[in-house]
Amino acid sequence: MSSFNISSNSLKENCNLSRAITIVENKLDGYSELLSNIYHLRKNIQKIGITGPPGAGKSTITNSLCKDLLKEDQRIAIISVDPTSPFNGGAILGDRIRMKDIHDLDNVYIRSLGSRGSAGGLSETIDEIIILLEAAGFDRLIIETVGVGQVELDVINFCDTIVLCLTPESGDDIQMMKSGLLECADIISINKSDRPGSKKINIFLNQLFDISQKLRKPPVLNLVALKNKGIDELALEIKNHYLFLKSTNAEIKRDIERYKKLAFNSIKNNLSNEFLNEKRMSFINKEAKKENIKRISPFKIFKKLPK
Amino acid sequence: MSSFNISSNSLKENCNLSRAITIVENKLDGYSELLSNIYHLRKNIQKIGITGPPGAGKSTITNSLCKDLLKEDQRIAIISVDPTSPFNGGAILGDRIRMKDIHDLDNVYIRSLGSRGSAGGLSETIDEIIILLEAAGFDRLIIETVGVGQVELDVINFCDTIVLCLTPESGDDIQMMKSGLLECADIISINKSDRPGSKKINIFLNQLFDISQKLRKPPVLNLVALKNKGIDELALEIKNHYLFLKSTNAEIKRDIERYKKLAFNSIKNNLSNEFLNEKRMSFINKEAKKENIKRISPFKIFKKLPK
Repeated sequence: MSSFNISSNSLKENCNLSRAITIVENKLDGYSELLSNIYHLRKNIQKIGITGPPGAGKSTITNSLCKDLLKEDQRIAIISVDPTSPFNGGAILGDRIRMKDIHDLDNVYIRSLGSRGSAGGLSETIDEIIILLEAAGFDRLIIETVGVGQVELDVINFCDTIVLCLTPESGDDIQMMKSGLLECADIISINKSDRPGSKKINIFLNQLFDISQKLRKPPVLNLVALKNKGIDELALEIKNHYLFLKSTNAEIKRDIERYKKLAFNSIKNNLSNEFLNEKRMSFINKEAKKENIKRISPFKIFKKLPK
Repeated sequence: MSSFNISSNSLKENCNLSRAITIVENKLDGYSELLSNIYHLRKNIQKIGITGPPGAGKSTITNSLCKDLLKEDQRIAIISVDPTSPFNGGAILGDRIRMKDIHDLDNVYIRSLGSRGSAGGLSETIDEIIILLEAAGFDRLIIETVGVGQVELDVINFCDTIVLCLTPESGDDIQMMKSGLLECADIISINKSDRPGSKKINIFLNQLFDISQKLRKPPVLNLVALKNKGIDELALEIKNHYLFLKSTNAEIKRDIERYKKLAFNSIKNNLSNEFLNEKRMSFINKEAKKENIKRISPFKIFKKLPK
């Protein structure tokens, strides 16, 4: 950690928090000590996922929702997950512009995360960054996703409350997103509801959820996020959903599972770091360079490695 | 494995191959023995990724391309990766209909794969299924993806040749997909090129790649896949790209990295299976159920576990 000392208060300063996230995101030296040292500082907070097809106004909703929640004197963290390049980590066009309202507020922290190409890398990184934000004392965390795909399903695993953003024209999108996102949704917001068709899609979704087997029927809200219409209701439903999760102990159960997953991951990494010494690494490297038919099967190599 | 005996020929029968894939996909009993036993049968084949935004005609291109490659008496395997529900594993609407031409041909094997919600699960599963297909003696593998997101970036890691499918209207999509997919593309196909704007987007992309730093400038092709126009050229470019990869040894290097990744994964799993006995598991479970402040940090628990 060298020059970066963690106290219970240091993560509350945004510049320290940013440095800590960069260390964790890029697995720089000292990153696991950092996580290890701040873990006990965290409190479990509501993690709100904002998801949906491109063009549904996720950034605008996130922006308005954040301003609404700030009225209660809360500190809000926002993570924006962007499927960017596995090569250069950058996007051709960012959409941070739409969040300019809240970008400079004291009680708001915004961070964009790229979804690297590495397998499982995104979920592990998000999980660790959430721990940093929980330890930094935020009251709520909003995770906004971009696009329709695996990112959403990865992110959803970490959220307590999923807000699915649609528009009156989302009929095709509903088909395209398949059943996955729709079933994950805890709250549906039909944004741009000043356009024709907003009532129709509201009725359609209500009927769909009437016949589904969800424990709790998701409320379907009509919004015009740009004009701040319906944002109060959305904020209220988000709070209600968290009360519901607490009443069923779902929130605690999820936290227990999360702890176990982190522990298993850390144990696996420790074990293989201890085990894969120079001798064994060079054995694997040699094997990899052989013709396929002469290679020891990678699924059997564990038992063939030198003692 | 019980009733399912593997010989070098048994995977060549589609019914056996399907059973084997199901075993691997769902990690059923005997799945690692199965992979282990067939590993030496595999030969490294060209893996072609067909990707791009929804509506670009990926299924149609896959369909036509497959028919074109069959002319050379090759056996082709197609994997279609669909971001489906983490809960029910099913899609509201499948798009297998568009591949009906090739569905019943003897030399073609088609399989849809859902992208489960689990972290890193998809890449691991795809990798293992590719090994089955390589061992089953196919000459080429086509992997078609659906949607724009993490799935694509995961799939791309396994492909030798990436065909990015766009349409004359894809200006917005190019922005939306950010730089990631564009930079991965080895070949660009502008499908539906009988519509206005196909020349314009071709010129735009050519200019974009002129200033990019790719080792090999991707050819930009104009297609009308439904009418089979441009498919011959696409097939030719795909073959040329593989020759290019072989000439730079990139194909061998990739295979070596793939072997090492499989070996590391398998070693990690073996280590943690041996290590996480009942006593240690119950220790972790107890710790998980404590209040957060009283928990041992999951990043430190490795050293605190009972001997």
